[in-house]
Order: sequence, then C-alpha cells, then structure tokens
Amino acid sequence: MNHTEPSAAAQLLIHCPDRQGLIAAVTDFIARHQGNILDLDQHVDANHGVFFMRVEWELERFRLAREAIAEAFDEECGKPYQMRWRLHFSDEVPRMALFCSRLSHCVYDVLARCQSGEWRVEVPLIVSNHEDLRPVAESFGIPFHLVPVTPDTKVEAEARQLELLREHKVDFVVLARYMQILSPDFISRYPERIINIHHSFLPAFAGARPYHQAHERGVKIIGATSHYVTTELDAGPIIEQDVSRVTHKDAVDDLVRKGRDLEKIVLARAIWKHLGRKVLCYDNRTVVFG
Amino acid sequence: MNHTEPSAAAQLLIHCPDRQGLIAAVTDFIARHQGNILDLDQHVDANHGVFFMRVEWELERFRLAREAIAEAFDEECGKPYQMRWRLHFSDEVPRMALFCSRLSHCVYDVLARCQSGEWRVEVPLIVSNHEDLRPVAESFGIPFHLVPVTPDTKVEAEARQLELLREHKVDFVVLARYMQILSPDFISRYPERIINIHHSFLPAFAGARPYHQAHERGVKIIGATSHYVTTELDAGPIIEQDVSRVTHKDAVDDLVRKGRDLEKIVLARAIWKHLGRKVLCYDNRTVVFG
Amino acid sequence: MNHTEPSAAAQLLIHCPDRQGLIAAVTDFIARHQGNILDLDQHVDANHGVFFMRVEWELERFRLAREAIAEAFDEECGKPYQMRWRLHFSDEVPRMALFCSRLSHCVYDVLARCQSGEWRVEVPLIVSNHEDLRPVAESFGIPFHLVPVTPDTKVEAEARQLELLREHKVDFVVLARYMQILSPDFISRYPERIINIHHSFLPAFAGARPYHQAHERGVKIIGATSHYVTTELDAGPIIEQDVSRVTHKDAVDDLVRKGRDLEKIVLARAIWKHLGRKVLCYDNRTVVFG
Amino acid sequence: MNHTEPSAAAQLLIHCPDRQGLIAAVTDFIARHQGNILDLDQHVDANHGVFFMRVEWELERFRLAREAIAEAFDEECGKPYQMRWRLHFSDEVPRMALFCSRLSHCVYDVLARCQSGEWRVEVPLIVSNHEDLRPVAESFGIPFHLVPVTPDTKVEAEARQLELLREHKVDFVVLARYMQILSPDFISRYPERIINIHHSFLPAFAGARPYHQAHERGVKIIGATSHYVTTELDAGPIIEQDVSRVTHKDAVDDLVRKGRDLEKIVLARAIWKHLGRKVLCYDNRTVVFG
Repeated sequence: MNHTEPSAAAQLLIHCPDRQGLIAAVTDFIARHQGNILDLDQHVDANHGVFFMRVEWELERFRLAREAIAEAFDEECGKPYQMRWRLHFSDEVPRMALFCSRLSHCVYDVLARCQSGEWRVEVPLIVSNHEDLRPVAESFGIPFHLVPVTPDTKVEAEARQLELLREHKVDFVVLARYMQILSPDFISRYPERIINIHHSFLPAFAGARPYHQAHERGVKIIGATSHYVTTELDAGPIIEQDVSRVTHKDAVDDLVRKGRDLEKIVLARAIWKHLGRKVLCYDNRTVVFG
Repeated sequence: MNHTEPSAAAQLLIHCPDRQGLIAAVTDFIARHQGNILDLDQHVDANHGVFFMRVEWELERFRLAREAIAEAFDEECGKPYQMRWRLHFSDEVPRMALFCSRLSHCVYDVLARCQSGEWRVEVPLIVSNHEDLRPVAESFGIPFHLVPVTPDTKVEAEARQLELLREHKVDFVVLARYMQILSPDFISRYPERIINIHHSFLPAFAGARPYHQAHERGVKIIGATSHYVTTELDAGPIIEQDVSRVTHKDAVDDLVRKGRDLEKIVLARAIWKHLGRKVLCYDNRTVVFG
Repeated sequence: MNHTEPSAAAQLLIHCPDRQGLIAAVTDFIARHQGNILDLDQHVDANHGVFFMRVEWELERFRLAREAIAEAFDEECGKPYQMRWRLHFSDEVPRMALFCSRLSHCVYDVLARCQSGEWRVEVPLIVSNHEDLRPVAESFGIPFHLVPVTPDTKVEAEARQLELLREHKVDFVVLARYMQILSPDFISRYPERIINIHHSFLPAFAGARPYHQAHERGVKIIGATSHYVTTELDAGPIIEQDVSRVTHKDAVDDLVRKGRDLEKIVLARAIWKHLGRKVLCYDNRTVVFG
Repeated sequence: MNHTEPSAAAQLLIHCPDRQGLIAAVTDFIARHQGNILDLDQHVDANHGVFFMRVEWELERFRLAREAIAEAFDEECGKPYQMRWRLHFSDEVPRMALFCSRLSHCVYDVLARCQSGEWRVEVPLIVSNHEDLRPVAESFGIPFHLVPVTPDTKVEAEARQLELLREHKVDFVVLARYMQILSPDFISRYPERIINIHHSFLPAFAGARPYHQAHERGVKIIGATSHYVTTELDAGPIIEQDVSRVTHKDAVDDLVRKGRDLEKIVLARAIWKHLGRKVLCYDNRTVVFG
C-alpha cells in the first residue's frame, strides 16, 4: 500500500427536499471558489421527493480556508435549500472502537485490514465482555478493555463503555459479533455510528440463533447483513448484505462455518463505506454512494 | 439438442431410518441383477437419523423386467430396511399443467424451454383465471382453459381445475405467478407435486407485495424462491432460491423488473430438478440430489 | 406495466478532457433554461484524464425547444470544453434488428420482453441465416428475413442485410447467438451499435466452442459476456458479464444448458442499458451509468 | 468450536476404469467388515470412462485394524478393479507449510483459521523470501524462515526450502501470494500437494499483474482461482474459483482491494477441501467431492 498520499479533499453529504437547481447550486459553489470536483453522486427518491448528494473536491487551490467552508456553504446553499448536510475532510482519520465477545473471525479480519494499511482508521481500543480475545488484541498492539456484562450490571457496564469511548475520542463503534444488546440510551449517543453484523439475510432470521433458524427452514442460501444499530433489534438501516449458497448436506455447523466468511466480508465492506463517508441514512434505509 | 437418445434408466428415491449396510444392500440388489449404476447420491441427516438416497441405473441388460422391479426391490430392500421409496423410469415423460394469471414472463420462459427440447415434459394444458395469456398459450399450440376465480366461485373453480388435471392425466402443477391461493383440499391431491415461485427470498417477505416490502425495508439484495406448495402460505419445502443485488437507486419498479429474471430462472431450475426426479421432501425441507 | 407515461426527458452523454468546472457548466446550462435534472452520473478516469457524464432532465418547462438544445449546448458547453457528446430524447423509441441462427433461447427471451412491454423498443425485423426460427418470429408477429450466408455469398449477404437495416431504419443490431462473423465493413456502419452475446467469461475462451474449452480446462465457474462488436473477434468493449457455478459433475451439455440462462440474462441486461442510453465507450471499455 | 470429537473415520479416494458393480464391491467390502458409511460420493466421467469415488466410514466397530485396511482393500477391490486409491484417516492431522512474500491478507486469514480451531491442521513453519511478515508469524507463534530468492540463488534457495519441508514433515504447501515461480523439480516432490492462489479468474489473465490486465480489458467481474501447482504456470487443476462484480468506477487499486477478499476466501475454501481429502485430480482437472 505504498501510494503517494493524495492531497486532502472535502466530502459533503447532503439531503433535502427535491427541487430544481440543487446540483447546479452546489457545483457552482465549488466552482466559484476554484474547487476541483473529484467525485459527485446524487440520487432522488421520487416517492418521498427527497434529494441526496455526495460530492468530494480537492482542497488544494480551493479559495476558502478549511475552517471557513461550513459557514460559507450553509449561507450559500444549506439554508436557501433547507439542506441537512455533513462536511468531512479526507485527511481526518476516524477513530473506531471494536466491541467483541468470544468469536475471533471478524476481529482478526478487521485488525488485519487496519494493520496492513488497507483502511485509514485508528483503533484506540477493543472492548469485550469476555477475556478470550485479549491475546488477539495484544498481538495487534491494541489496548483491550474487559467490561463484563450481566443483567444486573448492564447499566454500570454501559456507563463504563461510554466513558471509554469518550476518553478515547471514538467516532464510531463496530460490533464484531458482540453478543450483547445495547440499551436505547447507549444507542442514542452514537446515532448512525454503531455498525453491527448480523449473521442472517435480514429481515429473515432476526434475533437469536439465525443459522439454526435457517437450517430448520431449509433455505438454499444463507446471508449476512451489516446495519446501523437502532433501538429496534436487527431492524436498523442496512448498509451491506451478501449471501452464500448451501445445500441439504450442510448441517448447522457448516452454515456457521460458511457464514463466518460472509460475516467478515460484509462487515468489512460496511466499514469501508462508512470510512469513506459514503453512507447517508434516511427513513431507516441507507443511500450508499458508489 | 440433437442427442442420441440415451437408453432408459430406473430412478429410485429412498429414505429410511439410518443404519449400517444400506448402500451395500441397494447397490448389491442392482449388481445382482446386472444393473449398471449411472448415478448414486446419498445423504444422512445425522440429527434425525435419516438416510436419503437416489440411484439411477440402466435398464438395458438389467435382468429384471421393468414391471417386476418394484416388487423385487420391496422384498429385498424396501421392507427389510423400512424404506419409503419411489421408482421412476427416465423414459416416462411427466405431464405438467401450467397455472398463470396475467404476468407473462414465467410462462414464456417455461414454454420456450419445452418447445426448444430443453426439457422432456408434456404440457397438455394451461389454466388461468384471466384471458390475458391465451394468445401466448396459442402461439405455443397449447390448450388454454379460462377458469375465473372469485371468492364466491372458488370451490367450483377448483373442482373444475381438478377435473381438468384428471382429464389430462397431469402429474404435477406449476404455478407460474398464479395469483390465487389454493385450498388445502386442492393441495392435498398433489402433495409435493405443486411447484410455486414466490418473488422474495423466503422466509423474508412472505405474502403479498414482497417487492414493496423489500423496498420499504431497504434490503441490498432481493431474491426469489421456488417451493412445493403446502397448506401454510409460502412455507412449503424450498427447492431453489437465488438472489440479485439492488441499490438505493432501485425503485419498486426496478425491483419488479430485476425480480422477474430471478423468478423465471429459479422456477426453471426447480422444474428441472423435479423433472429429473432429484427432489425428496422430508420434515418440510428438500434433499435436492446433484 | 401500467405506468402513467412519464413526460419526455433529454439524455445527454458527454466525454471530454477532465478539467475544473465541468459539472457546474453543464448543470448551470440546464438550470438557466429551467430544466429539472432527473438523474446525473459522472466519472473521471484519473489515469487518462478523461471526464464522463450522463445527465437527464425533464423537457416539460425547459425553456429551449427540443430542436434548439443541441446547438445551444454545443455553443455554451460542447465547444468551450472540447466535449464529445450525444443527445437523446427518452420518447424516441429505438429500432432494433435481431440477428439469429438456429438457437432459440435468446430470441424468445428478447421477444417476450418486447411484447410484454418491459422494454420500449421497436423490432421491425428478424434476420437469420437459417429457417429454423421463422415460426418463432411469426408467433410474435415480426417479419422474418432469411439471408443465407456461405463463404462465397458473404459479401452479397451482408449487402442484403445492410439494405434491410437501412430500409427498416434500424438504430442498432442485436446478435442473439448469430453464428456468423461480420465483416469490418459491416461493423463500421454500426459502431457501438451492434451488441453480441458471447458464451464465455471473456477474455477467457474467446472464439469457437467456449463451453468445450471451459470443460476441458476444468473451470468451476462459467460465464457469459455481452459486448459491442468491433473488428477484433470477441474483443470489443464489454457491457455486461455474469457467471454461474459448475462442478465436475457438469458435462459439456450441462454447461451448455446452464450457459443458456446466463446468455439470455446477460444479453437482456446489456440491451436494457443500451436502450436507456447509459453506455459510453472509451478506449475499448465501457462506462455503464447506474 | 466445542464439539465432541467425532470418532475416527477412514477416508478412501478411488478412481479406475468405469465398469459395472464398482460401488457394490466397495460398499460390500465395508459392510462385510461391519463398517458404517458416513458419506459416499461418486462420479462417472462418461467421456473418458472413468469412475471416481470417495467414501468415509467409521473405524469404531470396524472389524479390520487400521493397519490392515490398505492391504485388505487392495486385495478385495483395488487389484481386481484396477483402482488407483488413497486411504486417509480423519484423525491424522495434516502438516501444512505456508509460503508467503510481502502481502499479508492471505497469511492472516489462514493463520486466524488455524488458531481459532476452524481447521484441523498443523502449521510447523512459514517460509518467506522477505522479512516483512515475520512479526505476523511470530504473533501466531509460528516459526518463520527467511529464504531469500534471487535468480542466482534460486537453486540453493529451493534446496533449503525442501530441506525445511522434510525436516518438518510437511504434507502439503500453501502459496499464500508467494511471488516466486517454483522449479519443476520442486513441484515434482509435492505433486497435487502445492496449492496456489492466483488473483484472476483463470484461464483469463494468467501470469503477471492480472488486475492490471483485467482493468485494461474492461471486465465487469474479477475473480480468483485456487489450483494445484504444476510445471505449467497458472495452468494446474483448478480447485475453487469465485468472482466479484466491478464497474468502470473501480481503478486498478480498487480491483486489488476487492480482489484481496476473493483471494483469501477462495484459498481458504481450497485448503478446506484439501484438508477434508475431498479432491481428486484427473486429466488436469479436479473432482471436488461435496
């Protein structure tokens, strides 16, 4: 991964009521200040009359200082068009917390990607309710925090977890087969910033033991689903899904084994999209820009 | 499709309690009578202790007359091992009835396969509750029977349909996007012999308007499922499934369009397996031999 | 397919040397004349420094008359930015000629889509070098022209074919498993307007008998490729590909059977993209807009 | 992975000229000695008249001692039917050497599977021509051997590698993106026991820089292929392949990134099949039992 570092870019994600002239307004804003657009993608949800857009432009030679962009954009486009928007910069490296329990496959996969330089991300900590994966964390040089969770201690455990996230300035959380259900309060602190991997093709087989459910039903294809966590279990906006073919010869153990590969690939693709600031949520669904 | 006609083969499908010596018993039966095995596939469901097998052997030079095989097999293997079994002959051409409503894509696809010689099957009739596809049926030279169905006339309509099936000596029925729900009585006449195509990745989105449900949920993959019809709606044994990737750009109409291609391919694969006598049902699931 | 007819839209496909301000220039052109953008997609090939764009906007309320758009656009954007561009209107129905030989599956599939209203396209004629599919053409009510081709008569045959295409004002040609190689002269008359389906995953197994080649090589996946025809055999810009899993159990006949389904689906997707004016060719590759 | 250890099983792989009675002979051999068949799969290559079979039976209660099986089988079946066969026992844990260069993704993936208990395999050593992955090897506690290779030192380097393989009693070698071409002499020592992962959908894009080749050709799907190494580069028997969709938006770097996920999954599936003694080679192709 020996690329020359690309120069920094601004990344703008927008949604607003659809109307004429939106793309022209935004691209004109960028052009007037001498920005060179690297990528632009837009989408209109015709049923709901909502406009979505992601645009990325080079900061080099852009005539507005980085600090001045947000205010200028809001004046010139945001307010006039009632836009909801987020501005990111490509050289800001996001900070990710990894939550796990006992299963190692997603943890290994995520950490190997971070370590090899495939992803631009910091992982300041791993949080788990079991000791099992401490050696894995340590082999990657990442601080491991054990926070046991029982029905009785759940409130304190989440308080401790939230404290850790604040302390380490965590931007988003990845649940890498973390087997606990987060409380609505916890979730509300990281809206659209907690990514879960569920080991089924949602909405089929939500909840517990999806591979057992899949085997029982006799499906010919299994799946995995990565989604943002919301207060309704396994019902948040879907970021990515993939599937794998199975046959009557596959016992539950085989589904579990084949499913692990799906889980890690689907979770990784979702994180990749999130890291690239390519995901917008709307109406409990996602717009995932190309 | 200019093959030389292969000589006729016997096709035996078996399931029974698992125990030692089952394969040896069956293959020995065939060998003793000088049969040449063309294909053998077996499977053991270890959880339920059930043995499944499909074996196909050449009738040429087999020392038992075709008419004598069933009785001999039952004496020598069936009864001693408490087998449930079915015997077919590869040169018996099954007779299929096609039920449809207004949508043409599966009907065209099925009939084109029949006409081109891809499948060895007779289609003595098409039954529909609407007139729309009569010209399609006629262009393929297949008798078209209009049997309108309303809540009030459903009993008589099914009686008429059953009469048609008997009259035309139909072996199995294909519901090619036939929009009516069959009564338990109708279904009980053709157990494991009515094949439906449902336009979702079951068990997700059973019932009505699955593409609308899929769009509403924001899935990234849609599917189609072919299954044998049982009295519980969209819950029968699954024969075949496949999926197709969609994005936020796909409106419901796009899901419908992409889904049509899935539906016809998945239905065709299920019919192909059924025609080859490769499907065994057990515990509301299928064993689909290779 | 009971949609209310959408109002007509202009569809503009552009490529030009990449530089700052291109999107702003085009969207400003549209906005100034009160056009409402329905869809915009763009791409920059950073290696070659080439910008690609497709934009579609409503003609209703657009202040330029349909006839005046081309000239105005060329003045205001095309010439200043050295753009190569094509302008289409969504209500112009393209005219497609279908070339076939003896195999029926793609022909049935294409014609069923046309007849069901899935595609907005006219099919004024079918051309074949064999009589076999005349009944299929006739059952869909489409004039069938037999143009036999032998090495000796190829020049005259192509002259006759070109005459038919001109006479029927054909916009583009689909080779639906048409088994003849077209001459460079023929191809040059319809650049990027002849769509072929090749029964392999190109560039593997170009040329004759690809399923035999695939079986011989022992691949575990077969494919089909739809591409624009160029003078180099099976080497034109790829529009669409798909694959299907096979095993050692699949004989060449099975590859042929499974491959037919791939061929018709892949060809149909390529035609769909072409009909939507979503394909741009550059450097022997395609940009296929979403 | 807390399974109760299944009792040991014998695994027999056979191929021989096809003739009547082969399955009966083998299953009778097992039944006569009171073996309980766990799995049986067979295949006939009708073109070449070759019979293939894999059968697995429980050793518990089998009346032949483990050491006596080979001779007895050869007497009773092997010689009479001119079989070529291999006998394995499920409780013999194979020993795998991992060869790598600088790329870490396959190495991490393979080692994580070994460590988590997904695979029953010993990895006594990792061999590399570069130092880069020493820390990875060490974090998994596996001895790492640097064997640099240059054109001038290749002969000595291979001699050193072969010595290491012998010393560590290695059964098979996995090339996890090992960037060196092995000599015919080296390959001949481990026939059908060196597994390579090639980063293309073979036979397309054999040789160097397949992602560059794929991008240049403008394919819409990329692939990866795992195969046994033979003396002809990238031309050995294919064990497993898989593919991933790409678009014009994907630059070479994106193909490399997407391809890495394919490579590790495809390699892992091939190793899984090899570990299960499910692969037979014949005529430069594989029979991969289910």
